[in-house]
Amino acid sequence: MTSPAPIDSFWAVVPAGGAGTRLWPLSRASAPKFLHDLRGSGRTLIQETYDRLAPLAPGRMVVVTGAAHQEAVARQLDQLPPEAILAEPSARDSMAAIGLAAALVERADPDAVMGSFAADHVILDDEGFTAAVRTAVEVARDGWLVTLGVEPTFASSAFGYIRSGDRLEDHAGAWRVAEFVEKPSVEVAEGYLAAGGYRWNAGMFVARPGVLLDLLAETDPAFAAALRELAADGSRLDEVWPQLPRIAVDHAVAEPAATAGRVAVVPASFDWEDVGDFDSLAGLLAREGESVTVLGDADVRVVDASGLVVAGGRTIAVVGLDDVVVVDTPDALLVTTRARAQDVKAVVAALKESGRGDLT
Amino acid sequence: MTSPAPIDSFWAVVPAGGAGTRLWPLSRASAPKFLHDLRGSGRTLIQETYDRLAPLAPGRMVVVTGAAHQEAVARQLDQLPPEAILAEPSARDSMAAIGLAAALVERADPDAVMGSFAADHVILDDEGFTAAVRTAVEVARDGWLVTLGVEPTFASSAFGYIRSGDRLEDHAGAWRVAEFVEKPSVEVAEGYLAAGGYRWNAGMFVARPGVLLDLLAETDPAFAAALRELAADGSRLDEVWPQLPRIAVDHAVAEPAATAGRVAVVPASFDWEDVGDFDSLAGLLAREGESVTVLGDADVRVVDASGLVVAGGRTIAVVGLDDVVVVDTPDALLVTTRARAQDVKAVVAALKESGRGDLT
Repeated sequence: MTSPAPIDSFWAVVPAGGAGTRLWPLSRASAPKFLHDLRGSGRTLIQETYDRLAPLAPGRMVVVTGAAHQEAVARQLDQLPPEAILAEPSARDSMAAIGLAAALVERADPDAVMGSFAADHVILDDEGFTAAVRTAVEVARDGWLVTLGVEPTFASSAFGYIRSGDRLEDHAGAWRVAEFVEKPSVEVAEGYLAAGGYRWNAGMFVARPGVLLDLLAETDPAFAAALRELAADGSRLDEVWPQLPRIAVDHAVAEPAATAGRVAVVPASFDWEDVGDFDSLAGLLAREGESVTVLGDADVRVVDASGLVVAGGRTIAVVGLDDVVVVDTPDALLVTTRARAQDVKAVVAALKESGRGDLT
Repeated sequence: MTSPAPIDSFWAVVPAGGAGTRLWPLSRASAPKFLHDLRGSGRTLIQETYDRLAPLAPGRMVVVTGAAHQEAVARQLDQLPPEAILAEPSARDSMAAIGLAAALVERADPDAVMGSFAADHVILDDEGFTAAVRTAVEVARDGWLVTLGVEPTFASSAFGYIRSGDRLEDHAGAWRVAEFVEKPSVEVAEGYLAAGGYRWNAGMFVARPGVLLDLLAETDPAFAAALRELAADGSRLDEVWPQLPRIAVDHAVAEPAATAGRVAVVPASFDWEDVGDFDSLAGLLAREGESVTVLGDADVRVVDASGLVVAGGRTIAVVGLDDVVVVDTPDALLVTTRARAQDVKAVVAALKESGRGDLT
């Protein structure tokens, strides 16, 4: 396999945030899911994200992460120069994180087109991903805010959807975004699939940094100005950062811009998984003919059982349980089912509430 | 609560054996269940057995255990003099163990009546137990081999049954044993309960040691002679022991003696639990209004779940599982259900077969 060719002036921005509470006790505030080798591939999710993007944007990657994770990210991505890893002094949601990266890229490279790709998503079809990004970059060069729309494989209620409108005149591979719709019920999602023209919003944006910041300036000029000032003079980061609005890039920029007809979608046919919970992880890791999938290194004994075991070194025996999820870590153990995987966040909330936030 | 009065010339024999494989990974070959505090009472099962018997037989207790457990038993029963703990050089089943104790007691006290009570059973009603033992001792003084017959509370297929015949003429509290019957099916057991006159065989025998050994001599004179020789001269134990027959006291003595009309049963109304598996342990520990019973010290978080958690120190979260059994130990973890508790032995067998006997 040869590496894909670089894309001219393409910058990869990787927001590395999110606690992944539904993946507790594997994912912790102190070690969120992007730092874990969730596929058992030998590479963590952020390393796989790096591997996917580095050939397309050699020497042009910016990772934005929490100050608490800066060291761990630097250790895992030791090919990156230190200045390529931005540490947010505190969590301010995605607009601040991606916007600061945009402002820095804008200063560094006037021809830049940036793409923002979360550090904790799984994509196995590198070729399909690369093709979609190439198309998106071409469209973005013309001033569009471009989002990648993942072809839905089932009526998921876990993702937002992108409804596409007309095909762009200048770009055969892109459509105008008619609207972004919030996570629907399964019934509504089934209607979307039947109607066609709806794709999953995987949160992947491609745009010129100036376009992104100018769109932000239309709804919140002070926010855009603050980000550009921080890019020009980083010395005031600790002072300015806590005053930035907590808002997602979707709400701050993408949705208003879609309403104004300025967002394009490039259909993406590659597989994509945000690994939000253990059900999703179990689906991702499931192998033909294997009743219990084991992630990690341990002696796992199965008698009449199916599901997922995340092993932590100890011998684990599972007897007589279907679709069970067992997650074994040095200080905490989770036992649940794939169907109840969402409810793991209730445990994390309860631990925090009772003063055991150290475990979360 | 005052201690019960001692019973004249009553000797307590406590066979402490059995691996308890269905309680893996809590119970191990290296630390069988009698060494564990399975009730969370602060006392292990063998300590509770000691506490129950010591007032009845002060200074007259003999524990027979495997050489591998001699030290642990001595540590747990530090009130016992070292000579009261007999170490079997190898496992020879219960006839050899109880028979050797009988031969020693026979030499030590010509008036002795001995009772044999397993080290790993749970009895909460000390008063009921004591009353039954007193009656059994009185009957045994007259030369009977006496067994305690536990009043069945349900149609169990896990225990053998004792069918009683006529009441003894000289003892209003005892009946002749018509026969011992092997573990029946649930349907057959239901028939026993409907018919009446059937009690659980809890493996508790009371007899003069000479009566027990003479009964053995009737079926296997060499065996009885070997035991009496070992009691007279312990120096040949390591040489003689491996040649003794591997047979249970039930088969070697009790069943043939019952056929000959020489066994009596004293009905016992006390609760009794042999804690054979995690289902039985869950039932024993269940407390009103508590969905998940926790044994051991740990932070256990329950969301919509019921069952038993044997904690090993780590935080454990159980979400959305009914009648689940989670057993957390430093090197091995078991996840199963109460209904499948019997199948735990399959895991132990598989571990042994694949060279991981160290874990069993």
